[in-house]
Amino acid sequence: MKYGFGVDLGGTTVKMGLFTQEGELLDKWEIATDTSEGGKNIPRDMAGSILFRMEGRGLKKDDCLGIGIGVPGQVWDDGTADAVNLGWKRVPVIGELTRITGLRAVGDNDANMAAMGEYWQGGGKGYSSLVLVTLGTGVGGGIIFDGKCLRGAHRAGGELGHIPVNPRETRRCGCGNRGCLEQYASATGCARLAREALASSDAPSALRSVEKVDARAVWDAAKSGDALALEIAGRYCDYLALGLASVAATVDPEALVIGGGVSRAGGILIEMTARRYRELAFNACKDTPILLASLGNDAGIYGAAAALL
Amino acid sequence: MKYGFGVDLGGTTVKMGLFTQEGELLDKWEIATDTSEGGKNIPRDMAGSILFRMEGRGLKKDDCLGIGIGVPGQVWDDGTADAVNLGWKRVPVIGELTRITGLRAVGDNDANMAAMGEYWQGGGKGYSSLVLVTLGTGVGGGIIFDGKCLRGAHRAGGELGHIPVNPRETRRCGCGNRGCLEQYASATGCARLAREALASSDAPSALRSVEKVDARAVWDAAKSGDALALEIAGRYCDYLALGLASVAATVDPEALVIGGGVSRAGGILIEMTARRYRELAFNACKDTPILLASLGNDAGIYGAAAALL
Repeated sequence: MKYGFGVDLGGTTVKMGLFTQEGELLDKWEIATDTSEGGKNIPRDMAGSILFRMEGRGLKKDDCLGIGIGVPGQVWDDGTADAVNLGWKRVPVIGELTRITGLRAVGDNDANMAAMGEYWQGGGKGYSSLVLVTLGTGVGGGIIFDGKCLRGAHRAGGELGHIPVNPRETRRCGCGNRGCLEQYASATGCARLAREALASSDAPSALRSVEKVDARAVWDAAKSGDALALEIAGRYCDYLALGLASVAATVDPEALVIGGGVSRAGGILIEMTARRYRELAFNACKDTPILLASLGNDAGIYGAAAALL
Repeated sequence: MKYGFGVDLGGTTVKMGLFTQEGELLDKWEIATDTSEGGKNIPRDMAGSILFRMEGRGLKKDDCLGIGIGVPGQVWDDGTADAVNLGWKRVPVIGELTRITGLRAVGDNDANMAAMGEYWQGGGKGYSSLVLVTLGTGVGGGIIFDGKCLRGAHRAGGELGHIPVNPRETRRCGCGNRGCLEQYASATGCARLAREALASSDAPSALRSVEKVDARAVWDAAKSGDALALEIAGRYCDYLALGLASVAATVDPEALVIGGGVSRAGGILIEMTARRYRELAFNACKDTPILLASLGNDAGIYGAAAALL
């Protein structure tokens, strides 16, 4: 039996997991992300934690197939990585991990790794290809075909949050453009759609008595049948479905998987999105299943291990 | 030196080419497409023409690497093909070609083959990945990464004409949906944009004296500086750029290549589209080159040969 490490590097913590070759998660733990000094200590901290865990379990180098790591940025072919939130610019993370641990290391963007995780052991298990859309603070994504991630020529493959879905938008997205999917289908986008709907009508709604109207409040109210919340949810799903239909006409995956914080809304989100998607999608893709991601915050470590194994 | 045959099966004619392994087109010819009796004679006609050409050139079976064929429909893993315009439903075209000629045969959708052709020897030569968008009667496309075509789970990969670009459209696309890219960026879409612009304003335009306002007339007038034609062309490019930006945020190719009849408009089409694309595309993809396809009607036979060689 061989083992592999999956690492999900985030701005606050580094999530780490020890996996069997077959995809069983044996152990998981976290360390704090030290962003001081341009994040220069991060590779050493991660490598140290892995060596410590190997020692604790009595694992030798020969027992381990290596380390997979997801980075909140770009990992280039030479093994260096950029990550704005960590202060990283061409940090040789892959080489450092290998130098310190003696193990092979592979890396990719964290959204791609999450897609790989859902493909390997999560909501998309058993499908030959999938697109993961992550609905969080922003909207991210990853595209997996034949077990490989479509990274793109500029590492922007799967940047689904920046599909233009509203040519008439006047406000700017965080990326600087106008009308990106992320402006509507992110958690913050959902909250904004809610604020706009509340301001532009006098319709009664449970949301009017909520102190902070966020995506969760909208979906909770929608689930309990609140008419205005259902209208907001419908508008949210219109945008999401438009993005999914665009993705399907481009890459035509076997499954569409929805993850990220907003996906905790669950079945109602999937059903409302799927209904609208069926209207917008190209005929050959109308029956493509829309599924919930199932690995939650562990998708990243699963995917990092999968990329390795 | 080994040789290969590239075949582009169309509804009226079958285009055929004899290629060297290096990609040189030695000879090309056409035969009529016999759509009688559900198109059942087509495989035999194509195989016969190839055998005849081999004999004429003194080529033995061992000199030939096989036959690549592009079909105006879907080619399935079992070697059968569907093609509405030919009356084909699960026709075992790959098996028939091999049985009659004794040569290996491979097949794919014609739009994918055209993309492969432009990648191999055309406008996208030298790029590691590309997306071809074909602006003809309809809008088609093909996506090539690492020398392989992204066919999709339902053979709908690269169906770029059916990316939804206008959620407010009330008219239906040929596919039954509303607001597909094809409704605007096809030659017929361009002509419709022109008719609408002419009807909704009194602005003088050279187009008012044109008997049949088609895409060509619009672009000819735009090139000579006609203000209304430039406005129509601008609207056309808005939609096309939106589709390209959507594709780029999804798969992030190294190059975007524009082919099909409307692409004969040339530089002005590329420049106007690129300008709008730079505004809409995700940052990492803003500089992705937008190029003209260069193989014209031969893209299909080049790509079919490339898929083989």
